[in-house]
Amino acid sequence: MIMRIGFGIDFHQLVEGRDLWIGGVKIPHHKGALGHSDADVLLHAICDALLGALALGDIGVHFPNTDNTWKDIDSKILLQKSYELIKARNYRVINVDSSICLEAPKIKKYSDQMRSVIAGILEITQDDVSVKATTTEQMGFVGREEGLVAYATILLAPIG
Amino acid sequence: MIMRIGFGIDFHQLVEGRDLWIGGVKIPHHKGALGHSDADVLLHAICDALLGALALGDIGVHFPNTDNTWKDIDSKILLQKSYELIKARNYRVINVDSSICLEAPKIKKYSDQMRSVIAGILEITQDDVSVKATTTEQMGFVGREEGLVAYATILLAPIG
Amino acid sequence: MIMRIGFGIDFHQLVEGRDLWIGGVKIPHHKGALGHSDADVLLHAICDALLGALALGDIGVHFPNTDNTWKDIDSKILLQKSYELIKARNYRVINVDSSICLEAPKIKKYSDQMRSVIAGILEITQDDVSVKATTTEQMGFVGREEGLVAYATILLAPIG
Repeated sequence: MIMRIGFGIDFHQLVEGRDLWIGGVKIPHHKGALGHSDADVLLHAICDALLGALALGDIGVHFPNTDNTWKDIDSKILLQKSYELIKARNYRVINVDSSICLEAPKIKKYSDQMRSVIAGILEITQDDVSVKATTTEQMGFVGREEGLVAYATILLAPIG
Repeated sequence: MIMRIGFGIDFHQLVEGRDLWIGGVKIPHHKGALGHSDADVLLHAICDALLGALALGDIGVHFPNTDNTWKDIDSKILLQKSYELIKARNYRVINVDSSICLEAPKIKKYSDQMRSVIAGILEITQDDVSVKATTTEQMGFVGREEGLVAYATILLAPIG
Repeated sequence: MIMRIGFGIDFHQLVEGRDLWIGGVKIPHHKGALGHSDADVLLHAICDALLGALALGDIGVHFPNTDNTWKDIDSKILLQKSYELIKARNYRVINVDSSICLEAPKIKKYSDQMRSVIAGILEITQDDVSVKATTTEQMGFVGREEGLVAYATILLAPIG
């Protein structure tokens, strides 16, 4: 079986007055992620990994931040749409492994909820979705709590 | 079939007075990438992913920046040489997924040309090469336009 | 055969008065990596890639830095324990590809020793472990020698 690899990375600033959505879950915090959509860094990285595995462009091509259709949109919809593009090409997701880099808040207690949301959209089990988290040990823009970064890797396989 | 995974990352400073080569394509911009070769951050990341998948060392081992052979060299030659090492070991490329992080200029319109260059060298179709791009939302050295970063992931499979 | 992908990233500060352990090898340097354990950035990234491939949580979940069990611990033990979790689920490692980002010292001459250590723990050959290194071209916290970063990608396959 010929599988395919996908990789995604996404960045957002953390600012006052915005909600903090990560992995489809709203995290209580005094800052939120800045962006055209709900700025869900993890779901965006997974969208890019899905699209990248089949060389379908990137999230900026499919959901441009100059298009009001995607203004303040729930990124679960973007993940759903990205997955539909994969499925339409007869591919399914084997597994997703992701890492979120942020200094605060601690998000480990939300990771199972994130995995459940992502697994539901990608039509896989929670055991096939990994959401890991790390600080950058106070270094760089993540360490200064100016922003956060997510990485996602994915394996796809043909259906049937 | 036993596939193998490869990963590469590369960094270059952006400075006045240099050309900006990304993915084998010369991009019009007032700054270019600084390096011993043509400093093509994307092709270097893909070289490292190829070499890494078979544990053949890294780009610094094969093409050291202390060796005048590689001074100002076209990185397409480095990619060709890296690929020949893979092919000589009876491996082929299944697919490549890459991400370029840079604040400016916009490079989306060049991505198909980059994919064509890379696919040609790696003897795969353009559908097996993904080139994505993102800003870092004005954060860090990429956000300040001091430099750029590329990530590449790759799957290899044995030939035959 | 259904393989699985894993990805890990880890960060540590570089400070005076600590040893510098990378890939299970003690590197002579005037600074070392700060952390609760021996702060081996490469072994930690590989632990996270192993755990992530099977969605078993992350290194912070399994070996919390609030637990004195792991204080100053040799990270080879953490890698061994992470691998045992994989093996207990009937998975084996196909290959590991990793990249270390640090400005100094040069670590290329230690990479074969690191590969040997890692291969021994993961019960694979040295040809299945890649350890690459790059600077960040003097940019960011790595470029200022404030810290170092490691990335690891991994493929697992079911045993038998």
